[in-house]
Amino acid sequence: MAITVVGSVAFDSIETPAGKRERCLGGAATYFSLAASFFTDVRVIAVVGEDFGKRQEAVFSARNIDTRGLERAAGKSFFWAGSYMDNLNEAKTEITDLNVFASFEPKIPAAYGDSEFLFLANIGPVLQRRVREAMPDVKLVAGDTMNYWIKDHRPALLEVLKGLDILLINDTEARMLAAESNLVRASRAVQAMGPQTLVVKHGEYGATLFQGSGPNEKSAPGTTFKVPALPLDEVVDPTGAGDSFAGGFFGYLASQKEQTPAAYRRAMFYGSVMGSFAVQRFGTERLQELTRAEIDARFDQFRALTHLD
Amino acid sequence: MAITVVGSVAFDSIETPAGKRERCLGGAATYFSLAASFFTDVRVIAVVGEDFGKRQEAVFSARNIDTRGLERAAGKSFFWAGSYMDNLNEAKTEITDLNVFASFEPKIPAAYGDSEFLFLANIGPVLQRRVREAMPDVKLVAGDTMNYWIKDHRPALLEVLKGLDILLINDTEARMLAAESNLVRASRAVQAMGPQTLVVKHGEYGATLFQGSGPNEKSAPGTTFKVPALPLDEVVDPTGAGDSFAGGFFGYLASQKEQTPAAYRRAMFYGSVMGSFAVQRFGTERLQELTRAEIDARFDQFRALTHLD
Repeated sequence: MAITVVGSVAFDSIETPAGKRERCLGGAATYFSLAASFFTDVRVIAVVGEDFGKRQEAVFSARNIDTRGLERAAGKSFFWAGSYMDNLNEAKTEITDLNVFASFEPKIPAAYGDSEFLFLANIGPVLQRRVREAMPDVKLVAGDTMNYWIKDHRPALLEVLKGLDILLINDTEARMLAAESNLVRASRAVQAMGPQTLVVKHGEYGATLFQGSGPNEKSAPGTTFKVPALPLDEVVDPTGAGDSFAGGFFGYLASQKEQTPAAYRRAMFYGSVMGSFAVQRFGTERLQELTRAEIDARFDQFRALTHLD
Repeated sequence: MAITVVGSVAFDSIETPAGKRERCLGGAATYFSLAASFFTDVRVIAVVGEDFGKRQEAVFSARNIDTRGLERAAGKSFFWAGSYMDNLNEAKTEITDLNVFASFEPKIPAAYGDSEFLFLANIGPVLQRRVREAMPDVKLVAGDTMNYWIKDHRPALLEVLKGLDILLINDTEARMLAAESNLVRASRAVQAMGPQTLVVKHGEYGATLFQGSGPNEKSAPGTTFKVPALPLDEVVDPTGAGDSFAGGFFGYLASQKEQTPAAYRRAMFYGSVMGSFAVQRFGTERLQELTRAEIDARFDQFRALTHLD
């Protein structure tokens, strides 16, 4: 089943202990689309500037990603520069130039109308809500957000959360959104805001799926599921790890006829698999050259890493 | 097979967001012994003062823990006071009174001589080494340490590491010991110091078992294993969680005829199971009243939390 994704397509300049890259292709919608494209059809909605050329376009077409919703505007594409020199777990943003993104008004091509799955990548909640409302008939809606929107655009974000089935955020964001330091209690508070499924990402410690009220002595087992991150002896560039996780997770879910509890558990594995590939090279380099056989082999590696037998 | 454990038996005064307790029974050897006693015979070596009475003794005898190596000395028992008010993940130490522990010289009862398993809980490396050397014929030796010994008693600690099969430490300690921020590379460096098996504890994010060089595209799978911590909606008191993990882990290993890779994986689960119980009440309260049926039920909960099928 096809996924429509709305989010940023951008150029990133990145510095990490492993080196530097200038203006490589990035943006949440780019990482998400590439990761999800290994599982299902992906259709992207975003805006780019005149600096987005044939080379960048080819990255999408090589993975059969539908770019009819990729609007070209006069000016420059979204640009971000960041550094991980102090801390591989958190980017220090040096430059954010919204450029053509500042006046972005998402338009949904008629050909996207039959998408059953919708992903609202990390952009302003007002834009997220507009796209959500323009696609009322989708079967499953997932979304992401970030500390900036949680802190300074809370009312608009709360409106978006009401329309989400699944929210993917990191632990700091979950705790901030719920104003609660215990993660189990925070997840319950976030679920009460709308999304019945919450995926909390822990960076190098993996991710937790919360569905229902969480495992304690009173609750039924299986409503919470944990997947680790792959222990890697070098993290080259953490940029896009969370978006790649979301792409693997939601892409796998969308590829399944029914979204059963077992499908959600496997989706968590595929999320962590795609995140583990993303960080092994700069930008989207590793995702661009990836094969399905490599994905399956790494899935088995995750099983060996976590399963008793 | 019997485990001999050397370490502290102490009184702790603890403050957490859930409340306060004055002078409850604590100490690394106490938590370890109680947790391990659900799996195998445990023999303790420690020193206590005149304040250690019948009530404390009864906690050990109720779990059939051999206390013939529990020396009584004139003076007061080891006393620790700490607070978790700022951060549930890290104790702020307010008082450490070594008392009778200051002049402790471990003596090993003849009856402990046939122990096949030895656990060196977190005490000074000079004492750890003395006990290790007095029991040269044990089958498997595991140990713990802490930032203080790593920083200020490194040469003595390095001597201890040479005699260990298994080291259990937390991530900060592993990174400090190896002087390396990447955990996979840090674990390799620590393994090169002696212990072929390294268990790195991540607090609320679980623990990782490293045996061999770790999973990457070149290494064999199964040499690294991850277990999460149980997501709990209330952590009452984190004191002793790591020692309880060690007791469940090493206790289960000692209960097995052969320490196979599958036994190590199950031992990781039992470690996290015992840690999850320890933090649900103050001090050793939860471990004292625990049953094997509760342990088995929680083991199944960990399986549901991590396994695909």
